[in-house]
Amino acid sequence: MKEISERFSRNMRIFRDGKGYSQGKLAGLTDLHCTYISQIERGRSRNFSLRNAERIAIALDVTLNDLTK
Amino acid sequence: MKEISERFSRNMRIFRDGKGYSQGKLAGLTDLHCTYISQIERGRSRNFSLRNAERIAIALDVTLNDLTK
Repeated sequence: MKEISERFSRNMRIFRDGKGYSQGKLAGLTDLHCTYISQIERGRSRNFSLRNAERIAIALDVTLNDLTK
Repeated sequence: MKEISERFSRNMRIFRDGKGYSQGKLAGLTDLHCTYISQIERGRSRNFSLRNAERIAIALDVTLNDLTK
């Protein structure tokens, strides 16, 4: 099984695309910086917090299990 | 709804007790320091990583959704 940050990044991208959200839109919804959103999606930020993971899950209307499967 | 770290801490304690694991046992299973395990449970560490949250979930044989409900 891939490392959790890789699974999260991949699923985050899929759900974000599914919603039709740009990275900027997701940044606005989560109150995280768009550069940070981009870094997470590209696997450049691998040790992000549970707190920020939940912000992203809420903005995408999915669960943490969905994002880490 | 309480902040995610508070929900995580509360549920982690409940599942750890349910397994009959000491904090030291959980530290060994997760390869995290027992002081860190204690800090998370007491709410003294609130910004822990998704990566460490998953280590704890795996050691307790539960999901991230279970730990953050």
